[in-house]
Amino acid sequence: MHDMARPHVESHFQSSESVRDVVIGLSDGLTVPFALAAGLSGAISSAHIIVLAGLAEIAAGSIAMGLGGYLAARGDAEHYASELKREQEEVVTRPDDEAEEIYQIFDQYAVPRTAAAPVLAALQQNHPAYVDFMMRFELGLEKPASSRAHRSALTIAASYIAGGLVPLLPYMFVHPPPTCNGCTDALNTAFISSTTVALELSVLITLLALALFGALKGRLLGTGALRAATQTTLIGGAAAAAAYTLASLLNAHT
Amino acid sequence: MHDMARPHVESHFQSSESVRDVVIGLSDGLTVPFALAAGLSGAISSAHIIVLAGLAEIAAGSIAMGLGGYLAARGDAEHYASELKREQEEVVTRPDDEAEEIYQIFDQYAVPRTAAAPVLAALQQNHPAYVDFMMRFELGLEKPASSRAHRSALTIAASYIAGGLVPLLPYMFVHPPPTCNGCTDALNTAFISSTTVALELSVLITLLALALFGALKGRLLGTGALRAATQTTLIGGAAAAAAYTLASLLNAHT
Repeated sequence: MHDMARPHVESHFQSSESVRDVVIGLSDGLTVPFALAAGLSGAISSAHIIVLAGLAEIAAGSIAMGLGGYLAARGDAEHYASELKREQEEVVTRPDDEAEEIYQIFDQYAVPRTAAAPVLAALQQNHPAYVDFMMRFELGLEKPASSRAHRSALTIAASYIAGGLVPLLPYMFVHPPPTCNGCTDALNTAFISSTTVALELSVLITLLALALFGALKGRLLGTGALRAATQTTLIGGAAAAAAYTLASLLNAHT
Repeated sequence: MHDMARPHVESHFQSSESVRDVVIGLSDGLTVPFALAAGLSGAISSAHIIVLAGLAEIAAGSIAMGLGGYLAARGDAEHYASELKREQEEVVTRPDDEAEEIYQIFDQYAVPRTAAAPVLAALQQNHPAYVDFMMRFELGLEKPASSRAHRSALTIAASYIAGGLVPLLPYMFVHPPPTCNGCTDALNTAFISSTTVALELSVLITLLALALFGALKGRLLGTGALRAATQTTLIGGAAAAAAYTLASLLNAHT
């Protein structure tokens, strides 16, 4: 808006939408596949199936979240278009109602009718500006950026995939099954001996990643690194603990 | 705002935030556990493990999404508070810059300085109203409802759980394993004979649920029932097909 006067406001706004998309994708990506893998570790010992389930979840989750972000942004754009059409009609068909709405907007800020009247008169001289004014100040709607929906979808999906691969890594290095005849002792030591050890490593690196991500998020959004790190770590830990407990209980009772 | 003049606008806004939360939760809930179950069906034949993975995913996903919604809403509230503090300071410490910003706001709508001056004078008489005006019309920020964060979290989580259970139902009725000695023929016919049949049923009921959900969403948000139904069905189908293909390929190569 007033780029000259305070350019940092605009740039802060722009980046915070993308940052928010990355935050949404990474939060869920670091949390859901992590919790799923941890949960399955509480019930089954096959690292192969855990990795398979984790990757299937990442494929499904990134498509669903990315598309969810895309549709949300597109929904906003469509809502804007339908309200714009209505305002354009009402400025012509109900001029007195619209004028009264202008007075009421200013009245909320203790601006008397006599002070608002010149603004109303100026707006009535210029219908496109009048409609824009009502869209922003009556309905609180901003014209959505046309490229926003696609960018938002891709940012969320990519962040989800990146986050989701972290907790699965240890499971990919679990010791191959006993049928691996060609495996030397040296090779075997490079692998992880069991799903339990993979779970422990997964918990360790994912909680570290969540803490690091939370700290960065806290700094970027200005909410404080330590507080945000504590928050994301607790969330991921809670989701994983819930999934682990649920899967263990269900497995014990069947 | 102007409840008397056009009450339907306000109520439309209120409901669309909750509807959007239900839409977010149901979209992902009907899509991700569905795609995960379908994906695993492409690689393993144990309905028990598929149900286990699905429920673990629902536990993790509902916690992560609900908390994601909560944190997003709380982040908005904190952003509002920090910007409010800055405006309160600037109105006192930089009165000329703030006045210039008022002129620039009106200038975007072709309102000349002479017409905007009485509004500025009225605002300068009342600092709290001046700050509120700048928050809304300069920064485009609305004071967030304090209950919004909690309600948003619970709505998203509950919708995710409700949606996620739909695709898992058929897998819960897969024929018990051969060790079920007490099973009569009559009981056996009530069960589903294999994971493949459960997958087919799951695809059928979930695509129907996605179509129904999409149609309702389209009507509620005013974007058209048929178009929205086609969209949600295609998304769910695409995510499930991607997960199924990925899991089948990975399983074949290991």
